[in-house]
Amino acid sequence: MAEGGTHTPYIRANLRDMAPWNPTAAIPSEHTGRVHRMDLNECPYPPSPVVVAAMRDFADKVNRYPDGGLPRLTSRISERTGVPASCIAWGTGSTELLSNAVRISVAPGERLVAPTPLWRRFEGVFRIVDADVRHVANRPDGGLDVAALIEAVDETTKMLVCVTPNNPTGMALTAEEIADIVERTPDHVLLFIDEAYHEFAVHAGFPDALSIIKRRKGPWLITRTFSKAYALAGARLGYVLCSEDAIANALKGVTSTFNVSAFCEVAALAALDDPDYTTFILDKNSEERTRLMEGMRALQLAPLPSVTNFVSVRLPMDGSKVAAAMRERGIRIATWGEPGYEDYIRVSMGLPEDTDAFLVALREILNASD
Amino acid sequence: MAEGGTHTPYIRANLRDMAPWNPTAAIPSEHTGRVHRMDLNECPYPPSPVVVAAMRDFADKVNRYPDGGLPRLTSRISERTGVPASCIAWGTGSTELLSNAVRISVAPGERLVAPTPLWRRFEGVFRIVDADVRHVANRPDGGLDVAALIEAVDETTKMLVCVTPNNPTGMALTAEEIADIVERTPDHVLLFIDEAYHEFAVHAGFPDALSIIKRRKGPWLITRTFSKAYALAGARLGYVLCSEDAIANALKGVTSTFNVSAFCEVAALAALDDPDYTTFILDKNSEERTRLMEGMRALQLAPLPSVTNFVSVRLPMDGSKVAAAMRERGIRIATWGEPGYEDYIRVSMGLPEDTDAFLVALREILNASD
Repeated sequence: MAEGGTHTPYIRANLRDMAPWNPTAAIPSEHTGRVHRMDLNECPYPPSPVVVAAMRDFADKVNRYPDGGLPRLTSRISERTGVPASCIAWGTGSTELLSNAVRISVAPGERLVAPTPLWRRFEGVFRIVDADVRHVANRPDGGLDVAALIEAVDETTKMLVCVTPNNPTGMALTAEEIADIVERTPDHVLLFIDEAYHEFAVHAGFPDALSIIKRRKGPWLITRTFSKAYALAGARLGYVLCSEDAIANALKGVTSTFNVSAFCEVAALAALDDPDYTTFILDKNSEERTRLMEGMRALQLAPLPSVTNFVSVRLPMDGSKVAAAMRERGIRIATWGEPGYEDYIRVSMGLPEDTDAFLVALREILNASD
Repeated sequence: MAEGGTHTPYIRANLRDMAPWNPTAAIPSEHTGRVHRMDLNECPYPPSPVVVAAMRDFADKVNRYPDGGLPRLTSRISERTGVPASCIAWGTGSTELLSNAVRISVAPGERLVAPTPLWRRFEGVFRIVDADVRHVANRPDGGLDVAALIEAVDETTKMLVCVTPNNPTGMALTAEEIADIVERTPDHVLLFIDEAYHEFAVHAGFPDALSIIKRRKGPWLITRTFSKAYALAGARLGYVLCSEDAIANALKGVTSTFNVSAFCEVAALAALDDPDYTTFILDKNSEERTRLMEGMRALQLAPLPSVTNFVSVRLPMDGSKVAAAMRERGIRIATWGEPGYEDYIRVSMGLPEDTDAFLVALREILNASD
């Protein structure tokens, strides 16, 4: 079907000849035996026992639709953030949220500004929305080039996309950088900040973008998720905090309140009821991040700074070759998949034994290539 | 914010001033005490014990992303339908699927043909896609007017939407009607048949649209769901069967394989492993449908024919007044919400006690209005 594009006029031009992208697929050997999953930035620990119990208790009730407004959870998030309940919308993880955030604002052919590299899924979103994207290169240390991002905005720009902490680079914006973006982005631009790794950044002493963006007169939205620090990637739940009802209502309109599984509200409420477990996850993540980075440095590598549950590093060889050699050893890691960054890999924090296995394998693979 | 439209230039024009639509919301009194939920076409029985056990067993594994391709379930559905695995895509219920089916084909301002009335959510989808819709009125008995639908298609039409059985009317197309659509819709048109109530129609002796649409040379897709006959509305799972890879790949592209909860694959596989339970659900539904329709006829009403898990009927008074009076009695039913059909209500099958409560209340409400 490779040449099928012109033969499929019933598919919109920007969606023709798409190859399925499935980073979650397992190869047959991974269905049995121990696999070190260090490619998807998952939490290596199961959800809190309180969360597991809440989901088990709910399993015989899923013949009914949940209240798609997630009213109890919305009210809880409203209390925690100070954002009115009417300005909060829900999605099946950050993927749906960021897709819809762009969709409600950017019509086909319209302009947005975004950093590069950023999470690959964003590029997929820009394509399906058919946006005219101005890419702004990150700094060499992986941080967003804030001045260049603002410089790239003009009167035709509909949206400025920022991510803190950024993925796949790993660093968060400082309070000064966020303030700079908030103050210097023109009011006609919808400012979108993705904070999927928010809890990790705060744990590392970095600021909450929300507290700063609230000063902004122009429109904004912030996306967050329960997939990472709350160990609920498989449940599929994220949320958007918006500057006003109209944005939340447009987001609700494109999802129709029927998107999120009924397990999500009970699971998320239970997770928020067990903050000690979240702290346990964040502490363990921080320990492994330190061990992983030290192990990389011992191999003469210079990992990018990270405040997240993953670490990226430039290798002296092609990253996809290293990823393939790792996968043969039962270790899954990610590449950046962006032209010009072929030598970079991204490694998610796992259990201590995952860190150990990765570092042993990395030493072997690098030595074998000498 | 009612006047906010022109003040929100950063929201696409077709998505401004949206009011949140949430048919699943419960009023405070419904959080306690017995509520007769006959408004959302849910299954009144919990999922099969096999399904509940499978979901409970999975609850401590949702820190990991599922394989978004749902490979085991895809292969199972491929075997059952004869549609190649590469032509099957997954979504969070019919809502996401029908939205994406329209999205991948119809660009803003492009033409599609659809029957009216049909499920309200379709109208929401047409709005968010910004489609130019030609509405074709159903026949007086609620059936699709097949000849008129085909007549409305022209060379600018991108998509023809059909639904069998239709919602909120309740009737399915005959084999002859489906064959007529399949043979007479021009090949440049993407033919979309929604079969959310497929299992109920087959149980009632109506044809499987898939077996007929496979003859078509032009492109097609069929949507189905696990929400209804498999009692999994809250889990959020539906699928699309496509005539070719390119359509499935475009659908996968707009959802990015991260949409469906990890509970879905294990739940759906377990449901397919327990066909006796599905038969139990379909048998019970059929019994209550007969009882409900006979009860309506005893009140001198003429319910529309139905092969689904709901029955619609025209009342001698405003349907929304009846729905409001029912809700005061703890009974939730739906109105059609379409201009010209204000006197119609739609009532979902429940347990025998739900049928009884509804019929008693309906007699009282109609008598009180005399």
